[in-house]
Parts: sequence; structure tokens; C-alpha cells
Amino acid sequence: MLKIAIDVMGADNGVTPIVQGVIQALKSRDFNAVIIGDEAQIAPLIPPYLQSRAQIVHCTDYIRMEESASTATKRTQSSIFKTTELLKNGEVDALVSPGHSGATMSLATLKIGRIKGVSRPAICTTMPNITDKPSIILDAGANTDCKPEYLVDFAIMGYEYAKNVIGFENPRVGLLSNGEEDNKGNELTKATFKLLKEFRFFKGNVEGRDIFNGSVDVIVCDGFSGNLVLKAAEGVASAMSSVLKKDIKSCLCSMFGALFLRGVFKRLKKKMDHSEYGGAPLLGVQKVVIISHGSANARAIECAIYQALNAIESDICSKLSYAFANKPLSTQE
Amino acid sequence: MLKIAIDVMGADNGVTPIVQGVIQALKSRDFNAVIIGDEAQIAPLIPPYLQSRAQIVHCTDYIRMEESASTATKRTQSSIFKTTELLKNGEVDALVSPGHSGATMSLATLKIGRIKGVSRPAICTTMPNITDKPSIILDAGANTDCKPEYLVDFAIMGYEYAKNVIGFENPRVGLLSNGEEDNKGNELTKATFKLLKEFRFFKGNVEGRDIFNGSVDVIVCDGFSGNLVLKAAEGVASAMSSVLKKDIKSCLCSMFGALFLRGVFKRLKKKMDHSEYGGAPLLGVQKVVIISHGSANARAIECAIYQALNAIESDICSKLSYAFANKPLSTQE
Repeated sequence: MLKIAIDVMGADNGVTPIVQGVIQALKSRDFNAVIIGDEAQIAPLIPPYLQSRAQIVHCTDYIRMEESASTATKRTQSSIFKTTELLKNGEVDALVSPGHSGATMSLATLKIGRIKGVSRPAICTTMPNITDKPSIILDAGANTDCKPEYLVDFAIMGYEYAKNVIGFENPRVGLLSNGEEDNKGNELTKATFKLLKEFRFFKGNVEGRDIFNGSVDVIVCDGFSGNLVLKAAEGVASAMSSVLKKDIKSCLCSMFGALFLRGVFKRLKKKMDHSEYGGAPLLGVQKVVIISHGSANARAIECAIYQALNAIESDICSKLSYAFANKPLSTQE
Repeated sequence: MLKIAIDVMGADNGVTPIVQGVIQALKSRDFNAVIIGDEAQIAPLIPPYLQSRAQIVHCTDYIRMEESASTATKRTQSSIFKTTELLKNGEVDALVSPGHSGATMSLATLKIGRIKGVSRPAICTTMPNITDKPSIILDAGANTDCKPEYLVDFAIMGYEYAKNVIGFENPRVGLLSNGEEDNKGNELTKATFKLLKEFRFFKGNVEGRDIFNGSVDVIVCDGFSGNLVLKAAEGVASAMSSVLKKDIKSCLCSMFGALFLRGVFKRLKKKMDHSEYGGAPLLGVQKVVIISHGSANARAIECAIYQALNAIESDICSKLSYAFANKPLSTQE
């Protein structure tokens, strides 16, 4: 049976919601959990009938959000260090962590190692759009300053993930730019465009709005830009709902109307809800690593575990190794 | 009386909506319009009682959207060339153009000239947020690759515009980054942060979501990033409304509910509507230049003309000259 390690320390709202997410996942899918964190807090939350499937690895130290990622390698007693060790030693098949994402990334890259040919691992996020399938964006924040070769690697990884894990038949890949025309872009994207032209999956430049209209399946960008657009998108969605809510409450007649629209609003919220997408895989390392939001709720952790299981079952890491072994020579660094 | 030149050629939907916008503005504010474009199309649209206030400068050539901005300087018979000449020679007090924005920018920069001390002019866009006042973002697209010194200049220009034209008492300026902490950012923003610390108006790094929650008044970024976040924001807003609309139409009961919410939806749409903000000033050139969307409707052109009038009346160009004459030495290039 597959084993998933979950680092339950260091999330914004403490241990409880994270462990609850693990329990939800254990109830609906076949796998064993290894829960890394404070046993005194974790043990009472696990129902007796699940105890045989949920091993606890006790540990109380963790990397605080305000600490630098660079301390992670020295903190051998921290939860993320221990979690990464378990994955490195093959005691588990994947890890999920809602803790310090910089620490998770640097430990995963250093201890698990990169897939041969991958210049930089990237965080691969899924975003809802108006179609039935999500958009895939990478890098969502692992690499703030990128070279064109990194972006080519992100494109290959995004394509393979979309195809093998999400189930797109022929994923279309776009390069995030300030216009759709071939000559648009900044220095980085213009140089990247020239390299990506060699790939059949490449559909050219796309704009910020294309993340949400399904015009391509995978959107490639540097981690700084990826972070900007994803946070801006969150900001608009939450501003729109708060303006709507306030305005509805200001009049009895619209409160009455909103009653009839409860289902509609609920479905919109579910569609836009990040929790449904769980976490984001760190693609390019040799094993499955899922990074969750620090603010992840139980449902998000549950979904992140499903993501880990899907990633293992689709054998994404081997597929990435194969793709990078066969990468066109002209795009290699 | 103030004179505004409006280039009515080269917009996505032809001459008519642009001229209609001019007429709307003429009806509600005191100014004279100089309309540059095809007289045969323009003249029939102007009501007789407004003819004395709307001079037509005939011209049929214009820079097509697919043409390169670099041709603009040689096309001396084009509408934007003639419009810029009028402004340069002092025959009008400001110009508004929904045509090729690259052409407008390069002609304005070359012929009108930069304000002394400004490294690069920037497009300054206003965005609705959850507060009563909009957020101001610059650069929204004039400069794809920037140096830290450019961003400092954008910050000064945004501050002065917010204070003198929009009416913020003490505008707070933030630097768009991938996290709020001082050490977050890419190479460009980290170097910019160090320079901006010298300014009292600087409130530190902000994230994409801060554009919509009013946590600062002015958001500074390079033109590539600015374009990405603004287009992403548009994309989310339009995706959310299209999902909502489709879902409402799928059930009679929610259509009934939506009837009661018509006013609410209308107000949300108006709040999020770009037209209400007209165009975006090109800050840093010596006279008032307003760049409108190519897809601008009559209302957007009307508002862009008001923006031009407000900018002239607030004497923003002199205020910018003064600010740059007194810029801290350490932040100069």
C-alpha cells in the first residue's frame, strides 16, 4: 500500500485542521499515512479504527514562517527535515507539507535531488477557469529570477504533468507575456519564445486573462510573475465577493433574491475555491513533493493527499526523467 | 477655454463611438475639442449647436495596431503624428488617443519631451478596489524591462498624480512584489526597495491582492508585470461573471432570484467597469497625454477627456517638474 508522509507542523492554524484532512483522506482512499509532528497533539485526533493506518513520527521543532529557508538544512530535528528524510530513504512514497514552502523546496531539492536535465524545480499550480478542466501554471513561486532555459524546462514539466496527471490529451502550452503577438515580451520571455518554438506543444504568447478562459492548458512564467498574477486573481475574486455581499445586505429585496441564488453562489465559490485543488506539486525533483498553502484547511490537505496519490500512480517522476533525457539539444543550457 | 485634441482614428470599433464620447463630454464640461481624423466620417456626427466647439483636422492615415510603433515618427500624415504636433505647438492643452498606444508613447516622448529628471515616462492606470477611491498602478505597460531607477521615478510620479489629480491626502506607495516582507522580491524589486526606503511615502512591498483591497494607494511595478496583473484581474472578473450568468440561466428559480439582484449586479459591473476610468495618463512627458484602450466605448472616451481636463486643471506637469527637481540625490541615476 502507498505511504504518504504529511508534515503537520508549521501551518497557519496549527495541527488540528491538517490532521483532520489526513483522516478524511484515509476514510476515502487506500493508503497509509505517516504523520510527522507533535504526538501529544496528533494522537488524540486519530480515531481508533484508523490508528493502524496512521503512524506518528514525533517531533516538535519546525521552521517558522518568518525564518529563512536557508536554516532548514541545519535543523535536523525539524518536522520538514524528518519528513524529507523519510522520502529520501524510501520509507514513504510522497510528502505533503503546508509548512514553510521555501524550506520544503530547498530540502527537497538538496536531499531528494533534481531529475537529470532539469535546471530548476518549479511549483506547479492549478487554477479554475471557465472550462471543466483547470489551467496549470508554473512556476508559481519557486524561482524569482529565471533564465530562458529554466522556462523551457517548466514548459516540458507542465506539459507532462497536464498529460499524465490531470489527463489532458494534447496539452497546449503558452508563455505568459504582455501581448499575444510573437514579438511581445520582456527580455526573458523574448529569449524563451525562441527556444520554445522548437516544441510542438507550444502555442505562443498568452496574456494574464488567458489563465481563466481555457485558451491554453499550461501557462509558463517565472516564479515572480506567477506569484503576482495568482495573488492578483485571488484579490479580484475576493474583492468582487465582498462588494457583492455588502451590497446584497444593504437592501431587503436583494437579500430575498440572494436566497434564490444560494446554490449558484455556492457553486461559484466551490469552483473558485483553492481548497479543491489541494496543493501544488514541486516538479523536477526525483520524488513526489506536494506543497500546500500555510492556510490550508482540512479539505485542502485531503485534496493535496489525493494529488500525491495521483502523481505517484501516474508515475510522473519517471515520465519527467524520460522527457528530459529526450529534450531537444538546442534548448539545453 | 481649454482645448483637447482627440485622435479618433485607429480605435477597434472605428470613428463613431470615439466621436460620440467627445460629444458627450462637450455637453457636460466647458472645453473646446479638436478632432483629428476623417472629416467625411466625423462631420455628420457633430450636432450643429456643437460645431463651433468642435474643430476637425482632416486626416485619413493612421498607425494600424499590427504596425510597429517605430514607424510612427516617419508617418507625418498620420492622425497621431498630427495630434502630437498640435500639442507640441501649444495649439491644444492635452491629447487623448485610443489608437496604437506604442505609437502614441514614442511620439509623445520624442516630440513633447520628458520632464527633466524623469528616466522613463510610464502609463498610470487606475483600478477599482473595495474602497471608495481607486488604486493607481504604474507602469501599466510602457516599459517592459526596467532598472531600479525607473521604478523610483514611477513611484514619485504616482505619488504626485494620486495627490494632485485623484485627491489622496497622503498617498501611500507600495512596491509590487511576491511577498510583503522586506526581503521578498526579484533582483529588480530588491534593488528598488533599497532606493525607495528614502521616501516617506513608501510603505514597503505589496502583493498582487493589494491592488484590490486598498491597503496602499499607489502600486509601482515594471510595465511587464503591470500588464500581467491588470490583464489577469480582467480575466478573473470576466470569468466569474460568465460562470455566474451561465449558472443563473440554467434554472428558473435562480433566474427569479437574479431579477431581485439586478440592481446589485449593475452596481458591481459599474464599479468594475474600466470605462468609468477612461484612459491612462502617460506620466513623465511635459504635457498631458491620455492613452485610451483601443476598445474604448463612448463613455470611456468621455471619461478620458475629463481625465485630461482634471490633469490640466491640477497642473500635474508643473508639479512633476518640481518634484523631480527636488528628488533625493541618492536615488538619481
